[in-house]
Amino acid sequence: MIKVTIIGSGNVAQHLIAAFLKSSEIEICQVFSRNKESISHLVDRSKITDNYDSLSESDIYIIAVSDSAIAEVSSKLPFKNRFVVHTSGSVPLEELDSKNKRGVFYPLQTFTKNKEVDFSTIPTCLESEIDDDYTILENLAEAINSRHYLISSSQRKSLHVAAVFVNNFTNHLYQIGAAICDEHQLPFEILKPLIAETAQKVQSLSPLEAQTGPAKRHDQNTIDSHLALLTDQTQKEIYKILTQSIQHSHVKKL
Amino acid sequence: MIKVTIIGSGNVAQHLIAAFLKSSEIEICQVFSRNKESISHLVDRSKITDNYDSLSESDIYIIAVSDSAIAEVSSKLPFKNRFVVHTSGSVPLEELDSKNKRGVFYPLQTFTKNKEVDFSTIPTCLESEIDDDYTILENLAEAINSRHYLISSSQRKSLHVAAVFVNNFTNHLYQIGAAICDEHQLPFEILKPLIAETAQKVQSLSPLEAQTGPAKRHDQNTIDSHLALLTDQTQKEIYKILTQSIQHSHVKKL
Repeated sequence: MIKVTIIGSGNVAQHLIAAFLKSSEIEICQVFSRNKESISHLVDRSKITDNYDSLSESDIYIIAVSDSAIAEVSSKLPFKNRFVVHTSGSVPLEELDSKNKRGVFYPLQTFTKNKEVDFSTIPTCLESEIDDDYTILENLAEAINSRHYLISSSQRKSLHVAAVFVNNFTNHLYQIGAAICDEHQLPFEILKPLIAETAQKVQSLSPLEAQTGPAKRHDQNTIDSHLALLTDQTQKEIYKILTQSIQHSHVKKL
Repeated sequence: MIKVTIIGSGNVAQHLIAAFLKSSEIEICQVFSRNKESISHLVDRSKITDNYDSLSESDIYIIAVSDSAIAEVSSKLPFKNRFVVHTSGSVPLEELDSKNKRGVFYPLQTFTKNKEVDFSTIPTCLESEIDDDYTILENLAEAINSRHYLISSSQRKSLHVAAVFVNNFTNHLYQIGAAICDEHQLPFEILKPLIAETAQKVQSLSPLEAQTGPAKRHDQNTIDSHLALLTDQTQKEIYKILTQSIQHSHVKKL
């Protein structure tokens, strides 16, 4: 049985709590939250505390708060030499207060409020200062059926940048697609199957193999007519730079 | 029974043939192909011709060739006043020779060679000069269970631009993600669940609602550290312009 204390009650904290509750190998000892209401639907009130001094002993303390609050929260913990981890993609392990043994438990996924996630499809990136603690992280990941990877702080930072490209920026391209549809009285739903298939393709093909379109074909007529059609200057610039980048990366690989 | 003749034997032609063969309401009369071998696994050789003059009568002739060949192929057809359509997203109806009645049957999807597609998940964009012919297009789309939309040539061109953003450009962002992983000894597979979920999210949320990340949060510390980490100048430029575009579009909507 892995005894876990969660510090935080936001989006990531709630998804972790929901996943941990389903595992017979994990015991949630306590949840620290300034706002008991926000998680009382998940955890019995007797287990929720808003007082650092009343935190009880557990195998691992998971700080699931906003990136900018991690350092401060870790320094407020009233104990030493226990195992304390954060869940952030972009914060190095060293930002945790060194009075405790430190680690990272970073689930690489985009969490939507109120939408349950299946951790068996979510990779977790693990890191710890001490080997023994790494075993706790592995056991925790396995208890929620998550595929796990040993990822250093510097690798995790790069991974976070890659995630921004494939998640945040990709979603913004969907938004540009939706804006173009709006402008021309087209329903955005017409693009949804294409969006789904585009993501599906790279589950088995490499993105380089999966690439199609006028940029890859060097179809300058189509490219020019698309640029002429775009009225928004930023959309035009994005079209140009991504077209160049596609053509450049396919030349490099030839 | 809708009698169909297909002109072409490439990727789109083959996917259409495979879908039509499954429908009890469609009869493939003939397939025109210069290369009989390329489709002999799909269609009986007696139905394949490489001679325009031997094309028999049917309800609809579907020209599924590269965009740049559509005009020429349509002008070579040795008959008049029959219903001839193309399957392209970016070519206007008017590029078809006016000696025949013209239309468009554009399935909005990215087709992968040798990967079967389910047309019940693919929207088709329909257009015709004459109302009676539109009924043929509707019947054809319904015979393969495809959701269909009346889309004008000018709308279709805009839709094609939107498709380039959500398909070609999105795939390129996946490729940048893969390149960053490569550079830092990270397996690309670690990003695949995130890619799948990002596409999944906008099936029910609008892209504007689904947007997350440092750009949207105006988290300049993270943005700066990401830019410092990127070594490729083009990747840096793409990161900058997409970050600005996210911030600009969220300001506009507030």
